[in-house]
Amino acid sequence: MPTENDAPYAYDGLDRIIHEKARLSVMTSLISHPKGLAFNELKKLCRLTDGNLSRHVQVLAEAGLVSVHKGYEGNRPHTTCELTPAGRDRFLDYLNVLEQVVRNANAAAGEETTSTTHEADGLNPA
Amino acid sequence: MPTENDAPYAYDGLDRIIHEKARLSVMTSLISHPKGLAFNELKKLCRLTDGNLSRHVQVLAEAGLVSVHKGYEGNRPHTTCELTPAGRDRFLDYLNVLEQVVRNANAAAGEETTSTTHEADGLNPA
Repeated sequence: MPTENDAPYAYDGLDRIIHEKARLSVMTSLISHPKGLAFNELKKLCRLTDGNLSRHVQVLAEAGLVSVHKGYEGNRPHTTCELTPAGRDRFLDYLNVLEQVVRNANAAAGEETTSTTHEADGLNPA
Repeated sequence: MPTENDAPYAYDGLDRIIHEKARLSVMTSLISHPKGLAFNELKKLCRLTDGNLSRHVQVLAEAGLVSVHKGYEGNRPHTTCELTPAGRDRFLDYLNVLEQVVRNANAAAGEETTSTTHEADGLNPA
């Protein structure tokens, strides 16, 4: 049975639905605005095009991570998006793994910087 | 001119070459092993198949982030990979942005937890 020790850098918890760059922007915007955001506002905050935002919001909605409300403001269509409770939970789980990546990489980078041992060729696997 | 304030969740610095999940695994493995890793070791640490690892290492090598050394150990081909100095720099830049994502999202999640009546119309993350 595979464990983290077998493959410490596999980061299975980095849910690909959330990890995609544009969707990570959307999820971070939405967790920062728990009452939801108008589609146009979300588009600006993430600097996405209409088409890109629509596509990514659809992926997140199909996965149950965000809910989309289509309504009207006066005569004009007005769409808003917000995180679902399950989406918030899954995003927090994802963030835990992301923190682990940052910790592992920064720890390694710091070690390397403070270590005086250098082998220019560096061909030997550890 | 677009600035971070225009689109605070765009995270332009999340280099897509590095951000892809399997490549993020590879980069984190390699920064943790500054002398380089044998292809087979890297494959195990990231839990990737031969084909997947080859493909992703090729993308990273073409972008100048990793270098690949093809040699022999006895009669058997022995391939090793390591981060290039430019790859290390770009990975550290990427990690700074990733930390910003984690900070923004965790700050928002914490706020929400401690203040359920908070008006969510502030568009500037910390």
